[in-house]
Amino acid sequence: MRKIGIQEIEDIALGAALLGAGGGGDPYIGKLVAISAVQACGPVTLLDPEEVPDDALLVPIAMMGAPTVLMEKATGGDEYRVLYETVSAFFGRPVFAFMPMEAGGVNSMLPIAAAARLGLPLVDCDGMGRAFPELQMVTFTIGGASATPMALVDEKGNSTIFRTVTNKWTEELARAVTMACGGSVSISLYPMDGKMMKSYGVHGIITRSETLGSAIRRVKEAADQTPEEAFLSITGGFRLFRGKIGDVRREVRGGFNFGKVVLEGIGEYRGKTGAVEFQNENLTASVEGELLATTPDLICLVDTETFIPVPTDALKYGKRVMVVGLPCFPLWRTPEGLALVGPRYFGVDTDYIPLEERCKGGRANV
Amino acid sequence: MRKIGIQEIEDIALGAALLGAGGGGDPYIGKLVAISAVQACGPVTLLDPEEVPDDALLVPIAMMGAPTVLMEKATGGDEYRVLYETVSAFFGRPVFAFMPMEAGGVNSMLPIAAAARLGLPLVDCDGMGRAFPELQMVTFTIGGASATPMALVDEKGNSTIFRTVTNKWTEELARAVTMACGGSVSISLYPMDGKMMKSYGVHGIITRSETLGSAIRRVKEAADQTPEEAFLSITGGFRLFRGKIGDVRREVRGGFNFGKVVLEGIGEYRGKTGAVEFQNENLTASVEGELLATTPDLICLVDTETFIPVPTDALKYGKRVMVVGLPCFPLWRTPEGLALVGPRYFGVDTDYIPLEERCKGGRANV
Repeated sequence: MRKIGIQEIEDIALGAALLGAGGGGDPYIGKLVAISAVQACGPVTLLDPEEVPDDALLVPIAMMGAPTVLMEKATGGDEYRVLYETVSAFFGRPVFAFMPMEAGGVNSMLPIAAAARLGLPLVDCDGMGRAFPELQMVTFTIGGASATPMALVDEKGNSTIFRTVTNKWTEELARAVTMACGGSVSISLYPMDGKMMKSYGVHGIITRSETLGSAIRRVKEAADQTPEEAFLSITGGFRLFRGKIGDVRREVRGGFNFGKVVLEGIGEYRGKTGAVEFQNENLTASVEGELLATTPDLICLVDTETFIPVPTDALKYGKRVMVVGLPCFPLWRTPEGLALVGPRYFGVDTDYIPLEERCKGGRANV
Repeated sequence: MRKIGIQEIEDIALGAALLGAGGGGDPYIGKLVAISAVQACGPVTLLDPEEVPDDALLVPIAMMGAPTVLMEKATGGDEYRVLYETVSAFFGRPVFAFMPMEAGGVNSMLPIAAAARLGLPLVDCDGMGRAFPELQMVTFTIGGASATPMALVDEKGNSTIFRTVTNKWTEELARAVTMACGGSVSISLYPMDGKMMKSYGVHGIITRSETLGSAIRRVKEAADQTPEEAFLSITGGFRLFRGKIGDVRREVRGGFNFGKVVLEGIGEYRGKTGAVEFQNENLTASVEGELLATTPDLICLVDTETFIPVPTDALKYGKRVMVVGLPCFPLWRTPEGLALVGPRYFGVDTDYIPLEERCKGGRANV
């Protein structure tokens, strides 16, 4: 158990942007929401998963809809109370703690804001260990958890609870209400007990985000390493490519951002071409047409000078980036995990081969 | 307390079609749903309002969306159980009885089906005493009741509960989910206690529908009256006009059926022109441009031979109809009632004058 204050939020936001693997939305807006909640209500108590009783009611908090809309709509500050009361009333007992659903962008920040506003603890655990685009893509699905009862509230005070026969229907109905509410709402889904969280969750994800963020901020302070060496060493990442953005193709289909960024090699990669394909999050990284990493491993683009993560919506011609691969949470590498988030689910016609194996043989510098 | 079986359903459907005042949808589909539920599960117990305890949890049942879609989608038979369980779980106590929200069409029938399927009693009371097009147009609104928590289920087993800050938002969100679910769903709204039902509801509305239906069926059996005299006497109706349909104009705007039917007088009305304007339900009746009846009084068109009600969607050129006015439930004539369902709410630029007063001076034959 420890406290999350404003400096911790800054670091968590930066680290979560890396774990967003290109997606999750800009954490900046979320960071403002979390900081203003902590300023108003005081720091948040962060619980280690093992500190949570097996029968405690835990409620992941996230937003649904467009983060850009979140910026334009007022942040009521009251949504989380309505969410808390709706869920507590539905289950007939109080929510014990909030938790994040994913690491990355806005959704790493809003659970902190919710915990601060309600004076509830936050559990250091999520269901992805990164960001993914669809709501069934959580480790708890492997554990047999249902996304519903899911609660949805807007900044006006309207609330909705869904129970659906499949998580696909959850997505359909919640999306319809999100649009009717103006395009951005606060949600809680996969309500679960402490046992499910401990058995299937990604433990320590908030602390990991914070550690990564803090280290990225101090990457140039390393005495005996280049900043890049320091970055790769603290992240445990594999350098896959370094290049200048030569082309970015984007397409919006079915509510997702699809696209591909083409990189012209720089430094030791001069003369080579790299490419990263994405669907909200980065899906594949290749050099000269050869795959070096695929989902569910994390493929992250970072600025070559500052090592600040570059999300897919900030990709611009001429920007110099390093492509880094990070191994995913081990549960994603099981057959059940790969069925949910493996390359074939996303339409990439290849078997999943762990990043570490693909990068054997000197193609990547560790 | 008495039982509702198949013959009662036939009569209720016929009477409710009259009380639908042109709207409410074709009761035929609803009748099939109710009859098949009673065939499968036995007759329904109908409770007099006074037999319901003040603190009993009562749940009005209705459908939302297009009745034509209801015909095309399977009638699961399981929706009402899901609705019952959803509402009972939400309130933390079992639903005591179902009730209808409106008299007219499909929504007079589905509560019977729900009560049969669940083995729950049905209360002989609704919130309109006729049909109206919008969900806040219930007497319980005058009593300060909220439409929410509102439950919505589809035939697949998906369920949603809404709590909204206004009934306008209930409409918005429920409409969005209804569309996402395929255009036709079962709903419960205005959950209330026995006290609210007794204080503001339209008592005995199911019995009234049944009495009207039974009498319409036997209108030609009267010994000392013409069928028309018998019809007017049993309904307490005012004959406003009799004519042949010369023109029907229809327009669909904002999900409502707007329109006007023009009638060429027959019999003693020969040479005169009558007109009925509608928004789902009939709003005004006039002869030679002079208003004879307006909402919230009931304006009904019936076949001149059979006295079977003719809903707005069955209006056809050449059909001979009688226009009949029926006085509305007294609460609708209060300032609060007229604010909800008076002519000005529907954009008709006239004060409300009760049907009986407009028809003084020999314009109508009683």
